[in-house]
Amino acid sequence: MQEVNKLIREAAEKAKRETDAEPEPQLVGEVTWPVEVKIGKGLEGAIACTTKVGYVNGSKGWLIYRGYNIFDLAEYSSFEETCYLLLYGKLPTQKELDEFNAKLVANRAVDKAVIDVLKMIPTAKTHPMSALRTAVSVLGTLDEKAEETTVEAEREVAIKLIAKMATIAAAIARIRKGEEPVEPDSSLSHAGNFLYMMSGKKPDPTFERIMDVALILHADHGMNASTFTTMVVNSSLSDMYSSVVGGICSLKGPLHGGANERVLYDLEEIGDPSNVEAWFRKARETKRKVMGFGHRVYKAYDPRARILSPLAKLVSEKDPANKKLYETAVKLDEIVCKELGVEKKVFPNVDFYSGIVYRSMGIETAMFTPIFAVSRVSGWTARALEYLAENRIFRPRAVYTGPVKADYVPIDKR
Amino acid sequence: MQEVNKLIREAAEKAKRETDAEPEPQLVGEVTWPVEVKIGKGLEGAIACTTKVGYVNGSKGWLIYRGYNIFDLAEYSSFEETCYLLLYGKLPTQKELDEFNAKLVANRAVDKAVIDVLKMIPTAKTHPMSALRTAVSVLGTLDEKAEETTVEAEREVAIKLIAKMATIAAAIARIRKGEEPVEPDSSLSHAGNFLYMMSGKKPDPTFERIMDVALILHADHGMNASTFTTMVVNSSLSDMYSSVVGGICSLKGPLHGGANERVLYDLEEIGDPSNVEAWFRKARETKRKVMGFGHRVYKAYDPRARILSPLAKLVSEKDPANKKLYETAVKLDEIVCKELGVEKKVFPNVDFYSGIVYRSMGIETAMFTPIFAVSRVSGWTARALEYLAENRIFRPRAVYTGPVKADYVPIDKR
Repeated sequence: MQEVNKLIREAAEKAKRETDAEPEPQLVGEVTWPVEVKIGKGLEGAIACTTKVGYVNGSKGWLIYRGYNIFDLAEYSSFEETCYLLLYGKLPTQKELDEFNAKLVANRAVDKAVIDVLKMIPTAKTHPMSALRTAVSVLGTLDEKAEETTVEAEREVAIKLIAKMATIAAAIARIRKGEEPVEPDSSLSHAGNFLYMMSGKKPDPTFERIMDVALILHADHGMNASTFTTMVVNSSLSDMYSSVVGGICSLKGPLHGGANERVLYDLEEIGDPSNVEAWFRKARETKRKVMGFGHRVYKAYDPRARILSPLAKLVSEKDPANKKLYETAVKLDEIVCKELGVEKKVFPNVDFYSGIVYRSMGIETAMFTPIFAVSRVSGWTARALEYLAENRIFRPRAVYTGPVKADYVPIDKR
Repeated sequence: MQEVNKLIREAAEKAKRETDAEPEPQLVGEVTWPVEVKIGKGLEGAIACTTKVGYVNGSKGWLIYRGYNIFDLAEYSSFEETCYLLLYGKLPTQKELDEFNAKLVANRAVDKAVIDVLKMIPTAKTHPMSALRTAVSVLGTLDEKAEETTVEAEREVAIKLIAKMATIAAAIARIRKGEEPVEPDSSLSHAGNFLYMMSGKKPDPTFERIMDVALILHADHGMNASTFTTMVVNSSLSDMYSSVVGGICSLKGPLHGGANERVLYDLEEIGDPSNVEAWFRKARETKRKVMGFGHRVYKAYDPRARILSPLAKLVSEKDPANKKLYETAVKLDEIVCKELGVEKKVFPNVDFYSGIVYRSMGIETAMFTPIFAVSRVSGWTARALEYLAENRIFRPRAVYTGPVKADYVPIDKR
């Protein structure tokens, strides 16, 4: 634990040295609606809302939840406390945290029907995010309070979903391996219990702490596509289960949550640090996208990658294959930063090192995106709840470029 | 049939007399990105994309699919042909339509696992859109081609989804009533088969034609929240099943697809045309929202309401209770248009008369939103496919209004 915290502290100090201490006041401050903006494709530059949940300063490489920077939260906080912070807007007292934890623990178990459906669909063969999407949807049909759409009622659903997402993801991991799901253990932390439910074994304390840090790092990240999807769904006053199902649907895509899997496939393809240089040259020549680098928002080194890199080193050390994977990654990181970092502001993102961390814990590659969901459900729900309090349905426009008047020609004259 | 077409033609002529013949060139034409816009809350005014799929001119009350106005399509086309038009961008030849129909018919049946899951979850008690969301999600886990995300592959999934959505919605309607789902009948049209699978009886030809018109009218409607959700999900290159599940999640909300149910509850509460005046006065005094009126886009009489009003009259005539419901609606329409129409541009929207149509066909009120999905899946998929061809992930921004630097205080000092 001390070792993990020390590595996080070192990463924080390095970040401080390399970026300015004061973040630029970019996208910070009050908004007077309507606001004039320049919009690019994919709604780039569009302002969807104001928020107090979290802030990404991409040019400085800063990530902030509710005012607290990610390095402090990774070092001092826990995933449970971070969830409380995101949902309620402040750090809890010990009593508040105890009550919140108790509620999470009490909600870990899922109804038998959810597991039965996972056994009925081809969970071992289908995309695990499709299985997760289905299981969370089933969960919603079983909750008689699902249709209550006040902020208070939806917050209770959010807590249930944070608790149960880990249980469902772990059940999917087990069923994929042909194993029976494991019941949650109420004596373990959220991260520890998640690892336990996946492996069936009490987790190593270093693994538990590193999973806790990984969950903290992935909890919220501005207006990404899955968070935005969750908010758009919730804005029709649908319900929190539907909104989170929407988030899962969106996160599934390789342009979003699916990226860290692909990093690992690339690293495996490279095979050895000595092959990196040649592989990278060829990737550049063939204009192949190098996965795990660059981000629409970050134009600096992603703070989450700063934290995950030394943790990936720590956790991969014992196994020669994982060690080689890590060394290959570091080599690729160096080359890309040197060649594209200064000029094109392309640096590793969170996906680049998270895969090595999970792999080194013995987790199957296909499960990386569901783990992302286990964490991000906290940010999805926190932002959907914040928007719900002053809700307005999302309805942008499209510009029509087709014909306005076409004469309907009967089918025998076409 | 002739009677239905005559009523549509009369509605079209009335629309022509009451609105200018030439639509204002509002939101029409090419876009040079980035584009400068003024954005309100809920992304009002934001340009999400360009499109050739459909066009709504709210100030004139025009609705256009692929160049063809909705009155022509309602009178001359069928839902199947409209789906082809939306997906392929042109009206089909007889051969193309025959092939497309054959594909739809061949894809109507759903895997037994989908029905089994609907029987396992509390389908009779849960929101039918939650059941639909779950069943479509299950469908995605069963399709081995779900992960292919080329335009061609996703279009094939879109056709499967258009075909199967009716089968699933009808199965939900049956299970809700404690009845066994009915297998599709390949000799019937999409609309006719849908009515047959819900009721178990061969449909009356007038009902069949009116359901066909209702499906045509609901197929596409600009960048509404569910269409937008479908596109946002698909933009991460997730998959077409996830994207349509996202659309269902969004449509479920009472601010979106759930509105026509609520119109019927209002009309039932009013009870009689003679009570309308007093009910409306009280609604105004208590600032209660009168459901089925007003639309963020339409500032004129909704063309879909123009068509559905006389069809609601036709279909409700034979039953005294339904006739009274229709007469109550007409009276409310008159009062609202008179008091709010000129001054505030508040007119009935599509939801105002669709409920009476479905009720008169013997369909349970809770099923109205799933029927909407049975139609809108065509517009969802058509627009998602169009965007996919030149895809860019949707990622707007939020403006952060919270603190930027908060010191992490240890829990025992809080």
